[in-house]
Amino acid sequence: MARFAAIGLDHRHIYDLTQDLLDEGAECVGYNPDTTDPRVLAGFRKRFPHVPEAETELLLDDPSIDFVVIAARPCDRAELAIAAMRRGKDVMVDKPGITTLEQLTSVERAVAETGRIWSICLGRLASPAVQEALRIVRSGEIGRLVHTSALLPHRLNRALRPSWFFDRPAYGGIINGIGVHAVDQFLAFADASDADIVLSSIGAFGTEPDGFEDFAEIVLATPSVRGYVRLDWFTPDGLPTWGDGRFFVIGTEGTLELRKNLDIEGREGTDHMFVANRTATRYLDCSRLPVTYYRDFLRDIAERTETAMPQHQTFAVCRLALRAQEQAVRYTAKCA
Amino acid sequence: MARFAAIGLDHRHIYDLTQDLLDEGAECVGYNPDTTDPRVLAGFRKRFPHVPEAETELLLDDPSIDFVVIAARPCDRAELAIAAMRRGKDVMVDKPGITTLEQLTSVERAVAETGRIWSICLGRLASPAVQEALRIVRSGEIGRLVHTSALLPHRLNRALRPSWFFDRPAYGGIINGIGVHAVDQFLAFADASDADIVLSSIGAFGTEPDGFEDFAEIVLATPSVRGYVRLDWFTPDGLPTWGDGRFFVIGTEGTLELRKNLDIEGREGTDHMFVANRTATRYLDCSRLPVTYYRDFLRDIAERTETAMPQHQTFAVCRLALRAQEQAVRYTAKCA
Repeated sequence: MARFAAIGLDHRHIYDLTQDLLDEGAECVGYNPDTTDPRVLAGFRKRFPHVPEAETELLLDDPSIDFVVIAARPCDRAELAIAAMRRGKDVMVDKPGITTLEQLTSVERAVAETGRIWSICLGRLASPAVQEALRIVRSGEIGRLVHTSALLPHRLNRALRPSWFFDRPAYGGIINGIGVHAVDQFLAFADASDADIVLSSIGAFGTEPDGFEDFAEIVLATPSVRGYVRLDWFTPDGLPTWGDGRFFVIGTEGTLELRKNLDIEGREGTDHMFVANRTATRYLDCSRLPVTYYRDFLRDIAERTETAMPQHQTFAVCRLALRAQEQAVRYTAKCA
Repeated sequence: MARFAAIGLDHRHIYDLTQDLLDEGAECVGYNPDTTDPRVLAGFRKRFPHVPEAETELLLDDPSIDFVVIAARPCDRAELAIAAMRRGKDVMVDKPGITTLEQLTSVERAVAETGRIWSICLGRLASPAVQEALRIVRSGEIGRLVHTSALLPHRLNRALRPSWFFDRPAYGGIINGIGVHAVDQFLAFADASDADIVLSSIGAFGTEPDGFEDFAEIVLATPSVRGYVRLDWFTPDGLPTWGDGRFFVIGTEGTLELRKNLDIEGREGTDHMFVANRTATRYLDCSRLPVTYYRDFLRDIAERTETAMPQHQTFAVCRLALRAQEQAVRYTAKCA
């Protein structure tokens, strides 16, 4: 079974990446304790007490290690990934995988030259509800696809955030940081590798520090499908989860809604789907449907395939998110 | 009590306008049977068998009639309204009240010269849930307002539609026709009389006749608030109501969602509200809250006040909707 190491313990997402890979039978054989956030390191040690710590250089030089998982500061991820690939490792990286187009070009070159896999754990891939929605759309049940809307509030959680979280060059901007999921999702539903950016706006509504990107809107279009994305850091303290993420799909003959993280004041649990088609409506609890991303990744590693996500599509998603980030028109709200 | 006549029986909305005014104690003393849709006329006669029919000219010349309600073809409404105002009548008109900027200018002139009231029964005014949401936003419960999203699917109901429904000059376009509600709603929540049109797009996704405006998106911005509007004619046949209209509000300290027409696969009835604030979430059934628009209108008629909606705001809403309609970038989906 595949052996991996965890490096770049700056974001708590490293816990899920590690656990989900362990659950699929991979073995975590080491981690590097360098971090910008000692709380993340402490949490990792508590969750995975049997995993030994080691220098990154030793982990990268260990020929028995197949791949690394990376949740460093976003701006540091590309360099780590490239170093790993140049030393024969495949890579699974927390999103966003990169923060600049220059980094993206360097990663693409490293993949081309080494033949290694560079995979980003995008939200769609780890969401059973989104996977099921994609299946339904492709089945034709709701007719021809017209439009998708992703409403993606996030909790700021100021007290838990390291300083890089508020440092624009370090996290790469709101669209690159949390919008990349939605860009990926739109391209997946539209069955496309690129889209026109009809609108890209980034807002600052007064969250400290001054100018912090606390809001964004994107409108995307392919020749046959359009999509809207709304991102923000305004999840209220009273909501019992980090964000009431929604996804609405319109087809010519039906619609579909996901309440991904909760059904506010409604059903228990996560991954709720509501469908209306030609004849009826129905509810679907998607929370127990399988997530295949991790096992697909592990098989890809073994068989040198691209079933988890085609490599070119991963690059396409990053490029589109970065373009939307770069082109965004700034909006600063006048606060009364 | 106020006496009124119904003229322009081209849209079934005339039923609600008439009934809601009767419920508030006004007296319907006549209607003109001219129509482009005999089914609407038959429905009116069935619902209001005691109301006598009469020539429009006689109704407009009757000094005992205080106001008229109009649900003519959209392109004919302004002329009827102006004729009524010039003969001393106030006017309540189905939305959209006008279809062109020229008509708007003529109506404004008629109002200025006659001192009559020209009121459009906009969706917000007749929705208890929206009125309650506005009250909550103004209370400060969800902090400073950041953004509103209106998702407004409509059922095409092809078999029930008269030919003018598919005739762009007759209905005035999708944004003017069904978007005017959302434009009004945004301005009301933003407490503004105008907004920048950041984006306006009209889509044709293949609904017959060729080029029919079956989709639109608008992004609006005031100096402190932004808003998104999505309109479409793709309500699926299997949905048990004409459209799963949603309204999402983001504040700096809370959020609010309305499910105006149904809670799909959830609670019975209409006008559902879901709030998350600094400390908790809560559900509110708004369906039994009062709608004050009709009684406010009747009092305005008697007292020459503007409590239902300031006259200048009605004009501002129409102007912004027409501008968005005119400026819209066209998108024609390539259908496979």
